[in-house]
Amino acid sequence: MKAALRPAAEILTIGDELLKGSTLNSNAKFLGRELTDLGFRVTGQSSCPDDFPVLTARFAECLKRSRVLVLTGGLGPTPDDITREALAEYFGVPLVFCAAQYRQIEKFYKGRGLHRVPAMVRKEAQFPANAKPLVNRYGIALGFTVEAGDCLVIVLPGVPREQESMFRELVKPLLRRKFPRLAPKCSLTVKTIGLSEPAVMARLGKTFFRDSFDFGIYPAPSEASLRLQSEKAAVIQRLRRICETKLKGHVYAFADQTISETVGGLLAARGLSVSTAESCTGGALAAEITAVPGASVYFPGGVVTYSDQSKTRELGVSPQLLKKHGAVSGEVVSAMASGVRTKFRTDFALALSGVAGPGGGTKKKPVGEVWIGFSTPRTTLAWKFQFSGARALVQIKSVKKALEILWRHLRGERLGAASRI
Amino acid sequence: MKAALRPAAEILTIGDELLKGSTLNSNAKFLGRELTDLGFRVTGQSSCPDDFPVLTARFAECLKRSRVLVLTGGLGPTPDDITREALAEYFGVPLVFCAAQYRQIEKFYKGRGLHRVPAMVRKEAQFPANAKPLVNRYGIALGFTVEAGDCLVIVLPGVPREQESMFRELVKPLLRRKFPRLAPKCSLTVKTIGLSEPAVMARLGKTFFRDSFDFGIYPAPSEASLRLQSEKAAVIQRLRRICETKLKGHVYAFADQTISETVGGLLAARGLSVSTAESCTGGALAAEITAVPGASVYFPGGVVTYSDQSKTRELGVSPQLLKKHGAVSGEVVSAMASGVRTKFRTDFALALSGVAGPGGGTKKKPVGEVWIGFSTPRTTLAWKFQFSGARALVQIKSVKKALEILWRHLRGERLGAASRI
Repeated sequence: MKAALRPAAEILTIGDELLKGSTLNSNAKFLGRELTDLGFRVTGQSSCPDDFPVLTARFAECLKRSRVLVLTGGLGPTPDDITREALAEYFGVPLVFCAAQYRQIEKFYKGRGLHRVPAMVRKEAQFPANAKPLVNRYGIALGFTVEAGDCLVIVLPGVPREQESMFRELVKPLLRRKFPRLAPKCSLTVKTIGLSEPAVMARLGKTFFRDSFDFGIYPAPSEASLRLQSEKAAVIQRLRRICETKLKGHVYAFADQTISETVGGLLAARGLSVSTAESCTGGALAAEITAVPGASVYFPGGVVTYSDQSKTRELGVSPQLLKKHGAVSGEVVSAMASGVRTKFRTDFALALSGVAGPGGGTKKKPVGEVWIGFSTPRTTLAWKFQFSGARALVQIKSVKKALEILWRHLRGERLGAASRI
Repeated sequence: MKAALRPAAEILTIGDELLKGSTLNSNAKFLGRELTDLGFRVTGQSSCPDDFPVLTARFAECLKRSRVLVLTGGLGPTPDDITREALAEYFGVPLVFCAAQYRQIEKFYKGRGLHRVPAMVRKEAQFPANAKPLVNRYGIALGFTVEAGDCLVIVLPGVPREQESMFRELVKPLLRRKFPRLAPKCSLTVKTIGLSEPAVMARLGKTFFRDSFDFGIYPAPSEASLRLQSEKAAVIQRLRRICETKLKGHVYAFADQTISETVGGLLAARGLSVSTAESCTGGALAAEITAVPGASVYFPGGVVTYSDQSKTRELGVSPQLLKKHGAVSGEVVSAMASGVRTKFRTDFALALSGVAGPGGGTKKKPVGEVWIGFSTPRTTLAWKFQFSGARALVQIKSVKKALEILWRHLRGERLGAASRI
């Protein structure tokens, strides 16, 4: 289907917090991506306050212009949550009660040891009489759908986790049924690491875009994901081949998975294991590894050695080495990596030490300088990186780089001997 | 000035990437916060694609409803950037050239060793003839302002760093001059832990809302934040007193800070220290502690003991204890906590072991069961929790609860002796 012919979808996110700048609108990003992936043309996104007349006015505008309107937020139990009431009044219908959702609410409270549902929470099981309920199994606020003229309105709670689960499980199948001719049949996700968005685009070049297909690129710290869609399997196959060639050494998955999942899968499949020793990332690498269910198969544990003394005591890094080279050095991360590998008896070990900032930088070792050590049964290597951005970003980039190093080793790359310590 | 009388401001962010879900709209958050803090009522935020007719239509709608419209993005040099052209056409005026911005562009290119400005970049120094230029010293795209009837339109580049600098240096003083009677508002942030959003609302009760003031409540896992704003300092003082009474034992800050920052501040002020031993959270507690700059003062480190063997080897948890009670038990987290406290020679230690899921649950120890151990120089306690939600949520809630326990101890609460092991 040509872009201009694809049905228009809009997103209306409700909540004062969005307008006052208290919250980043991650829901708008999630819904934009999902609707685009389904094949809709997302022509607008608006946020409006928890304000009866403003909400009604924006709602009416969106209805006129779109075939699908996803509206989220303002479904909570407090008096400032008015989305249900505003929509019921707009349609001139009463609010009715969904027993299935109320049972869910009772279960939710019982699970927390509370045997009475507060009276104000009862309204979370209500929906406008002209709507169809979407039972929320992930929280307490009922969602619903309404056919309003030519527009299908989908109303979901604003809590990101609940919204995302409900969208995937209930809304996606519904949209696929209602718009059977919509979805491009073939799609491909390409996950890359170690390239910036412009670098990916430059490598792909102009010929990549020869055929007509839907293209999305989604940058994240140290990563860029591509999402390609087409009606023609041959087009997707051609694009995949180009990615394999032009992005060689950077594609870690042709699926929607994280680098931590990819690395974990490789370790598990080969019966190998890894441990971690962290200074500047303070446990974030171990947390990223154990974010994957089943990580215990290949990850027995790690240490966070935030002080010099703990590096010595826990990992056997000699005080002389620390004094001579400083904690942020190739020598020290190498000693940390081999120390933790021995300690946890793993095949591999990763160690990090750096200046995450904002303080602690010097002319010789500025904020963002991070050393990563990697120990294998045969050798120990260390690399120096200079990461830009605030503390949290330096920490994330360090974690990603450490996982990238392990991934490169597992896929059989010879890691730069020049950096051997 | 009453809320309803405050001038209405809107934000219009332009760019396909916002609608396809490639980019989180951090500009909308920044502008929402800045405009709210200046005293405007932000009544809308919209994103629209780089599409001539759609942009013009949204622009016209926003103009009608607001006194101030901040429009950002679509000012780049490529053909899909059409904001300048669309506004000039809307106003029926030609685009004219700003020599000051062009000098800035030439300087920018020279600084990068390029002595000729590409022809396509020239348009970045243009503005509609009815506008006043806002020279961009941080990048190459000119900003501008237009008085359109009763609405002041402010157009800024979409690059966050440029936009933020230009807003602070050029736009803020301009808005203060144009709206001299915008009341400086008093505001209060209240951060609570251990109460759900409905529980906070129920505790505050109806009398809390007696006066007229701006109220926002923002739930997060295990937390709820309040944001209160009023023109009257006395109102804010009264609200603060009510929060102190009604939310007693749950308010950890009257400022925009995290529980980890609060706990860190208390530890640092008293010269105390903490270490961590993590199983089910896999390093996420240590990562949360070290997300705070300067955490090294009170956090020497911790261990992630993901396997039974590592609990024994690293923390001295006896194999008999593990066999008898299982890794997810009060006995084991107590042994982990006192083990890591001794190991890292800290005043306090926190230890976690649980079933984060999705697998690994049993009838006796279901997914979401988490034990937290807390060791002090005088005693070691352990508590059992049952957290709901997916793996990541169980992990976050566990981390928050562990920090809450330490916070409660530091503020002098006597922690439940019933749960003493």
